[in-house]
Amino acid sequence: MNAPHSPLPVTFADVQAAAKRLAGVAHRTPVLTSRTADALTGAQLFFKCENLQRMGAFKFRGAYNALSRFTPAQRAGGAIAYSSGNHAQGVALSAKLLGMKAVIVMPQDAPSLKIAATREYGAEVVLYDRRRESREAIGRSIAAERGMTLVPPFDHADVIAGQGTAALELLEDTGPLDALVVCVGGAGLISGCALAAERLAPACHVIGVEPEAGNDVQRSLASGERVMIELPETIADGAQTQQVGELTFPIVRALVDEIATVTDAQLVRTMRFFAERMKLVVEPTGCLAAAAVLERVLPLAGRRVGVILSGGNIDAERYARLLLEYAETR
Amino acid sequence: MNAPHSPLPVTFADVQAAAKRLAGVAHRTPVLTSRTADALTGAQLFFKCENLQRMGAFKFRGAYNALSRFTPAQRAGGAIAYSSGNHAQGVALSAKLLGMKAVIVMPQDAPSLKIAATREYGAEVVLYDRRRESREAIGRSIAAERGMTLVPPFDHADVIAGQGTAALELLEDTGPLDALVVCVGGAGLISGCALAAERLAPACHVIGVEPEAGNDVQRSLASGERVMIELPETIADGAQTQQVGELTFPIVRALVDEIATVTDAQLVRTMRFFAERMKLVVEPTGCLAAAAVLERVLPLAGRRVGVILSGGNIDAERYARLLLEYAETR
Repeated sequence: MNAPHSPLPVTFADVQAAAKRLAGVAHRTPVLTSRTADALTGAQLFFKCENLQRMGAFKFRGAYNALSRFTPAQRAGGAIAYSSGNHAQGVALSAKLLGMKAVIVMPQDAPSLKIAATREYGAEVVLYDRRRESREAIGRSIAAERGMTLVPPFDHADVIAGQGTAALELLEDTGPLDALVVCVGGAGLISGCALAAERLAPACHVIGVEPEAGNDVQRSLASGERVMIELPETIADGAQTQQVGELTFPIVRALVDEIATVTDAQLVRTMRFFAERMKLVVEPTGCLAAAAVLERVLPLAGRRVGVILSGGNIDAERYARLLLEYAETR
Repeated sequence: MNAPHSPLPVTFADVQAAAKRLAGVAHRTPVLTSRTADALTGAQLFFKCENLQRMGAFKFRGAYNALSRFTPAQRAGGAIAYSSGNHAQGVALSAKLLGMKAVIVMPQDAPSLKIAATREYGAEVVLYDRRRESREAIGRSIAAERGMTLVPPFDHADVIAGQGTAALELLEDTGPLDALVVCVGGAGLISGCALAAERLAPACHVIGVEPEAGNDVQRSLASGERVMIELPETIADGAQTQQVGELTFPIVRALVDEIATVTDAQLVRTMRFFAERMKLVVEPTGCLAAAAVLERVLPLAGRRVGVILSGGNIDAERYARLLLEYAETR
């Protein structure tokens, strides 16, 4: 689909190597179909269910791939990450499986459920005050003091390669697709997936979806440089990134055909669709790609389309309140 | 597990024949596992996800098997059922797929979403007043007037054989199990499943689970005859049957080892577990078997256990309110 491009910082071979490392460790998540969704859109849709991945999101893939490439010295020191979201749990679980220590730096006001889940995976949680402290500074200082290796959430070659295995599996299961629709935060997932699609389905359009309030990647592509935005207000908390990565941006420029956006209301309607029609819990961020398809932001009638459901981690209260809020406003 | 028994009204060969009719029509639903659930119980659990079946519940299996065995004359007349639940939608969808007419008799106060879903499948919905009219009388009179064939929700050999294909698939996927846990309403599902288990896993304990408030099958087994109970008050609306079937009772007596019961509070906690940990929407009735396992009503540590999640049809508002109610009372 795209013009020839200069060498990228991550290759398809890296994605294949990640798939070997993840075999038997990550779930090969199911690809589900829905006649109702197909009838709504006129397309043939294939939903890759990363909400059913270990720890509930695709982030496990990249984290595990990165940690499994640590040198013996790095393994001895352990891994550190700052995140209040799925990356934290991905790093914590991967460290546990690989027998190394992990420190996760999280804001004091993170949901207690997420803090508890991260501790359950055996990680040490270091809390900080969002208003007075910098997580980067805390992370750097712990990393230096304890000899730990920082694992960034998206701007890292091994993380990108790991995330790409989601599309690799999807395309192995479905064969060539006309379009692949993927949520975009820092663009780690879509970068890896685009590398897989370029090789396995060269004619496939790769389309990213951002929250309307946080369309930094869309704007970056338009302006040709990495635009930095204010912290976006959106229920898609996994896509509140303010700037696309240094490694992910060139991959997106080379391999992604289009970035679409959706509103929070479209995300909630999509979340409800998955609950009622497909019996799946998908978190708001996980609904980004599907919302652009099911709400017909993207015209895809007649096409075979892969849609990645990126995660399902949302606590039951918040989930229930979002479902009810929708009911009250429609 | 059980003593030799006299010939039963349905056989394993009937279940096998049903599986052939359903091949390529019903979904072969996934069997999911959860390390968290295994850690909670000490057992190795295999969840057969009939909430991901077509129209959202196992009922499609039995309905489609029954309708596909209609004679040409019966096909010309069409099918009639009275149900406000999953059986209605199973019959409506099966009739549509087989190109025949369907009438569903539903109470006026049935959830508008269920009425709409049944009509979406192309069925004619006849509403009646629960307080003044008898659905059986209405059903019989329409059946006679229009030459339609009544399809009962559980007490029918073809329905029982169809439901048994759920356990057939599960045991094909997992190999022999130590126990198979199945929800019980009119006992159509457990009867069919017990026939499959008797042949494919003769040492497997077959355990039924009823709502505590509606334990008519448990009481029937204890007394040796089909006990009739008042309409039970439980959130497990698919298990509000007042009396086990004439065909299902002898199968349960011969092949089911034990009936356990669970409370509504246990069902809601289990529903929440599936939402938060397995990202699955399971309706209260669909949680019966899993609740007995996850709430450790049944001691299953060290065993390989199949658990059937029978359905996921619940409207989003009711689902959200049940999740929140739990949050408020814990």
